Amino acid sequence: MERIPILKLGDCLLVSIQVDMHDRLAMQLQDDLTSRIAATAARGVLIDISALEMVDSFIGRMLGNIAAMSRVLDAETVVVGMRPAVAITLVELGMSLPGVRTALNIERGMDLLSATPDIRGNDNGSPVG
Amino acid sequence: MERIPILKLGDCLLVSIQVDMHDRLAMQLQDDLTSRIAATAARGVLIDISALEMVDSFIGRMLGNIAAMSRVLDAETVVVGMRPAVAITLVELGMSLPGVRTALNIERGMDLLSATPDIRGNDNGSPVG
Repeated sequence: MERIPILKLGDCLLVSIQVDMHDRLAMQLQDDLTSRIAATAARGVLIDISALEMVDSFIGRMLGNIAAMSRVLDAETVVVGMRPAVAITLVELGMSLPGVRTALNIERGMDLLSATPDIRGNDNGSPVG
Repeated sequence: MERIPILKLGDCLLVSIQVDMHDRLAMQLQDDLTSRIAATAARGVLIDISALEMVDSFIGRMLGNIAAMSRVLDAETVVVGMRPAVAITLVELGMSLPGVRTALNIERGMDLLSATPDIRGNDNGSPVG
């Protein structure tokens, strides 16, 4: 399984991360996701990390990069499904996932994306996190 | 990663299979999925297999079992995202995935689930496939 599937849900794309990420897989995901955003004119990207037992700085940077790349392609990114233990660890490590929005689950994430169509007005900084 | 995450989308549950399945993981998925159907009163189960490069008899039997278990819990199962090459191989191997409905992608699968609320009237055979 060399690729992480990207699922289309209406205006959004959904990515469920279940496998251990490494450099090449992260690059492949960025390539695939940006291509799909361009091809489908998606307005939102949902990244489900409920399978992840830890989020280290590599994953955190990857999420930030994906959010920044999506933003310049006019799509908002919401990370959903974070486990409570992961949230605790993130804060203890001093990682705040800058530029990345989070929601409890997919439904809340889709609500967030649909409720704030001009969500990106308040945070359009550098495209590379 | 010892579990496959189950995502709730409205009335449906979504499972995206990305990793190589083995016996214990399949049992765990069946346990988790039936518990989630009972807990959320879901009416549909979408299983995305777009990441799978092949569907062998083990996977085919697992899909049939999940569909049968869901059916007796009053939820319909639709398998979505099958690759064209997988469809060719399935037919060449003489596997027709009995009792399992398929759709091209998640959106078509959700349409199928919402369009036919009494879909199970025509196929309520033995619960074990």
